Amino acid sequence: MIQLPSSALDQLLTPCLVVDVPAASRNIRRCAAFFSGQPAALRPHFKAHKCTTLMRQQLAAGGCAGVACQTSWEALVLARAGFGDILIANQVVDAAALDEVGEAAALARLTVVVDHELQVDLLARAATRHGVPIGALVELDVGAGRCGLPFGDASLVPLAEQITRQEGLSFRGLQAYEGHAVHRHSREVRATLVQQAALQIQHEQARLAAAGFDCEVISGGGTGTYDLAAQAGALTEIQVGSYVLMDGRYGTLDLPFEPALYCVTTVISRRPSRAVLNVGLKELTVEYGMPVIQAAGARVTALSDEHAQVSLTAGAAALAVGDKVLLIPAHVDPAVNLYDRLFAWSGTGFTEWEVDGRRHYRLPGFSR
Amino acid sequence: MIQLPSSALDQLLTPCLVVDVPAASRNIRRCAAFFSGQPAALRPHFKAHKCTTLMRQQLAAGGCAGVACQTSWEALVLARAGFGDILIANQVVDAAALDEVGEAAALARLTVVVDHELQVDLLARAATRHGVPIGALVELDVGAGRCGLPFGDASLVPLAEQITRQEGLSFRGLQAYEGHAVHRHSREVRATLVQQAALQIQHEQARLAAAGFDCEVISGGGTGTYDLAAQAGALTEIQVGSYVLMDGRYGTLDLPFEPALYCVTTVISRRPSRAVLNVGLKELTVEYGMPVIQAAGARVTALSDEHAQVSLTAGAAALAVGDKVLLIPAHVDPAVNLYDRLFAWSGTGFTEWEVDGRRHYRLPGFSR
Repeated sequence: MIQLPSSALDQLLTPCLVVDVPAASRNIRRCAAFFSGQPAALRPHFKAHKCTTLMRQQLAAGGCAGVACQTSWEALVLARAGFGDILIANQVVDAAALDEVGEAAALARLTVVVDHELQVDLLARAATRHGVPIGALVELDVGAGRCGLPFGDASLVPLAEQITRQEGLSFRGLQAYEGHAVHRHSREVRATLVQQAALQIQHEQARLAAAGFDCEVISGGGTGTYDLAAQAGALTEIQVGSYVLMDGRYGTLDLPFEPALYCVTTVISRRPSRAVLNVGLKELTVEYGMPVIQAAGARVTALSDEHAQVSLTAGAAALAVGDKVLLIPAHVDPAVNLYDRLFAWSGTGFTEWEVDGRRHYRLPGFSR
Repeated sequence: MIQLPSSALDQLLTPCLVVDVPAASRNIRRCAAFFSGQPAALRPHFKAHKCTTLMRQQLAAGGCAGVACQTSWEALVLARAGFGDILIANQVVDAAALDEVGEAAALARLTVVVDHELQVDLLARAATRHGVPIGALVELDVGAGRCGLPFGDASLVPLAEQITRQEGLSFRGLQAYEGHAVHRHSREVRATLVQQAALQIQHEQARLAAAGFDCEVISGGGTGTYDLAAQAGALTEIQVGSYVLMDGRYGTLDLPFEPALYCVTTVISRRPSRAVLNVGLKELTVEYGMPVIQAAGARVTALSDEHAQVSLTAGAAALAVGDKVLLIPAHVDPAVNLYDRLFAWSGTGFTEWEVDGRRHYRLPGFSR
C-alpha cells in the first residue's frame, strides 16, 4: 500500500485521486516483461485512465503494437499527442464523431471496429471526406453479449467484402473481446471461456480465409485474461487497461498487479459506530460495489451524492474528524473519468497529470 | 416529452445532455408559485445541476431565501457569480476547502453546517484568517443516518455556545434533512416521516431556546417533500434541487414537475432482439437503476463502461443503427456532474450552458 506522509496528505483538497507511481511502474514493467516472450503483442487501452502521460509510460516499456481507445475523441487526443497506431475498439456512427475519426486518421494509423454495413458506409464516407486511409476490424461477439457478430453469422464475409470494396478502407481482421470472462473469479473458468472464444475466432477466421481474407490483426483480451488470451493462440494483440492502476474488483482476482490508484478523503462527521467521509457519487461510482477502505475494522456501507458511510467495528482504526482516509475505487475507468487531474505521487512529491482524454462537450461550430 | 426535430438531433455529437428549457421553466414557475403562499422560503440547491445559468433562472422566479450548495468550491463559484446568500449544506474540514469558504465569505453572506466542535474550531480559524463573518447551522440527523446530531444529543447546546463564543462566527440555527423520506413512493409515508422530523426539530429548538439560543434559520427538505416540509411548520426554508430538471427516480413519485433533462444517444449496433447505444458508465450512473428510454417496447437492461444494452419486445420501436434515442437519467445530480456543458433546447435551437460548479482538481499552489 502507498505510504503518504501526513505532510503530503494534509496539503490536499479532498476528495482527489492519487496515483502511486512506483506501483504503477511495477505493473507496467510486469506486464511488458510477460509480453516480451509471447506471440501476441500488448495494446494498452486508453479508456481505463484517459491520461496520455501514463500511456506514454506504458508504451515506453516496450512490447506494444500500438494503443487502443474507445471513443473518437480519445483517438483524436491520442493522435494529437503523437501516438502513431490507434485502434478505436468500438463502433462509431455519429456524423460529428466520424469527423473526429477522419481528423485522427490524418495524424496516425487508425483502425476502427465495425459489425454492420451501415457503419462501413459511414466510415468509408469519412475516409473519402477527409482523404485519409482507415483500417477496419469486424467485431465478433464471443460471449460478452454487447456489440459484434454472433457465432457463424452470415454477414461476416459480406462485411469483409464490403470493406475491401470501399476506397479508403482496408480490412485488417477481427476484434473479439471476452468481456464475460475478465472478472470471473476462478482462473480455471476464465481459461475455459478464453479457450472457447479462441475456437470461435479460429472458426470465423477459417471462413474468412476460405473467402480469401487474411486477418493481419485479431484484437481482444482484458486485464483479467491478459496471459490466458495471449497464450490461447487466437489473438495477435491483447487490449489491457486496468492493469496499470488496478481497482477493487480486479484486486479480488489472482493477478500479479498492485493497487496504484487511491481516492484520498477526509472524515467530516463521526458517531460512535460510524464515520462519514466527504466523498460520494460525484467522485466514485458503485456499479462494482463499494470502494475498499484502507483502515482496519472499517467498511464503506453506502455512497450518497456527497457522502460515504463508514461502519466501524470494535477495535477499528480511531478515525477522527479531519483524518485522511484512503479508498481504492471499485472500478477504475468510471472513477478516473470523474476527475480532470490525477495527482501522481513519486514517493517524495506530487505532480499533476491531466486526464486529457475526457471529452469536452461542445455544440457543433464551437471549438473543442 | 421534449420534441427535438431530427435536424437538431443529427447535429449533436452523442452522448450529450439536453435540457428542455420550456419544461424546466414550467418546473421553476410551479415551485415558485407554490412557495409564494408559504411560511417557508425556497432555497434552490446548486448540487443538482451545478449550473449558475440555471440557478439564476430559479432565483429570478422569486420566493428564494438564497441558494444552497454542497461543497466549498460550489460556494466559491456561486459567490464569484454574484449570488448573495449562500448556504453550504455540509461539513467542511479540509484546510484548503476552508480557504475556499473564506474566499466565498468575502463575497457573499455565507453559512456553513456543523455537527462537531472540531469543525467549529476550523471554521472560526478560517473566519479569522480571512477576516470575514461566517454563519453556522448545527445539523440534526432526523433519520437520514448521515451527518448530524441524533435525537436529544447532549452536544447541541454546547455547540451553539461554542459557535457564539468564536469571533467571526454566528449561530444562525439548524439544518435537518429528511433524506430517508424524499424518495419514499407513498405520499402518506413521506408526510409521516416529515411530521416526525418536524417534532424532533421543535424538540431540539425548545432545548436551544431554553439555553437562550434563537433559530433564525431552520433549513431542510428536498424535492420529494418540498410541500410537506414547507407545511409541517418546523422549517423556515426548503432545499430543493432535483425539481428543476427531474430524473427517472423522482419521476415515479406523484410530483407536479416534468422531466426536463435528456441524454441523447445513438444506436451503434443491432441484433434482432436488442440494440446497443453509445452511452455507458462515463455518461450516466446506475445507483438508482437504469435510465428510462423514450422508445416504445424498449428497456435498458445494463450499462457497461461505454455501452447501454437495450432489450426490445415484439412490436418495439424500429431502432436502427444511427438512430438517436433519448434517455431520462435515473439520478440527476451525478449525471450532470459527468458533463462540462449542457445543451439547452429552447424549442428552436441549442445554447451551451456551462456546468461551472464542477470542481477542477488542482494541487495547492496551482491556479484554479
